Amino acid sequence: MTQTPSPQPPADRPWTGRVFVGVSLDGFIARTDGDIGWLTDPPPGREHTTVTSSVPGEIWETYFPTIDHLLMGRRTYDTIATIQPWLYGSTPVVVVSTTLPDDDPRVAVVRSVDEAQRLLTERGARQVYVDGGQLIQSFLRAGLIEEITTCWAPVLIDSGQRLFGELDADVLLTLRGCHVSETGMVHATYRVDHS
Amino acid sequence: MTQTPSPQPPADRPWTGRVFVGVSLDGFIARTDGDIGWLTDPPPGREHTTVTSSVPGEIWETYFPTIDHLLMGRRTYDTIATIQPWLYGSTPVVVVSTTLPDDDPRVAVVRSVDEAQRLLTERGARQVYVDGGQLIQSFLRAGLIEEITTCWAPVLIDSGQRLFGELDADVLLTLRGCHVSETGMVHATYRVDHS
Repeated sequence: MTQTPSPQPPADRPWTGRVFVGVSLDGFIARTDGDIGWLTDPPPGREHTTVTSSVPGEIWETYFPTIDHLLMGRRTYDTIATIQPWLYGSTPVVVVSTTLPDDDPRVAVVRSVDEAQRLLTERGARQVYVDGGQLIQSFLRAGLIEEITTCWAPVLIDSGQRLFGELDADVLLTLRGCHVSETGMVHATYRVDHS
Repeated sequence: MTQTPSPQPPADRPWTGRVFVGVSLDGFIARTDGDIGWLTDPPPGREHTTVTSSVPGEIWETYFPTIDHLLMGRRTYDTIATIQPWLYGSTPVVVVSTTLPDDDPRVAVVRSVDEAQRLLTERGARQVYVDGGQLIQSFLRAGLIEEITTCWAPVLIDSGQRLFGELDADVLLTLRGCHVSETGMVHATYRVDHS
């Protein structure tokens, strides 16, 4: 089993945008009220088939150490801000929000995607984890994502916050790895083909 | 590499409902105008990583021969009716539509999901392939689906006809197999856990 290498930044930007996200099979990253218990604490009792793969997708334990900056939207920040201990250790976190007060010493707050881009470049970011549905959609539309790992949870949850949204054109992807976890999650890692 | 066996019907019904469907990574089975060229004729030039799997999901060539009846909605019928030669050989096809004239000798037309259920039972159906977004949604809500194979195409298409829709409750799935095709499609086969 070999791990796929981290993607390189494009020629015109010093950092690479990477998505790693759990999603229900019907395309939601959270219920309408923000609940992700279906993802983090699924009902027990199902015996998923053990499937081994020659080239796995990304897994959190080896993916997160390759990241040097983490970018999230306001909704994601509100979900994780109160979790103790802080989930992201010493990895710098940037929150994109027009309204969040800039008073949490654990994060830097920027007001726009443009400002986020400038800050990441100033800081010498190389591998940027982009989290949160709306931010992922904005970055995809702006051509700022090079890699997507979708972790498909084995459940349909009916409604909620969608992972993907409107685009200006088709986005072609190249599969780089895929495997199944013990909890029946299908991890698929793709490179985004910028045309 | 071992193929997962076909699912058995539940205790209260002589046939099992099975879904096998291609879907864009953002959850669409067709563009708004019905186009599926992104699925059947993807742009060339991408080199997807070769991934081997110990337990594959279903593939069409071995799945279709296990089917004895095919059920589809009007929109799917309209898409495939003019394709020559007829795609489904001698496998009986039932179309669920309130408006389709009953004048195509290749198919039986029924007017409701209830009528479809009665006809399938009368005919001694055992393995029923359920196709088309709206019909799949109706059958899922009615608890008439035992197996789902999603074939995720490596592309985001922005908008179109969604595979999944509203449900009355969460639907739990058990993963039975998964593999990647040469064209970068991720085939994942699930059993539906009826509670």
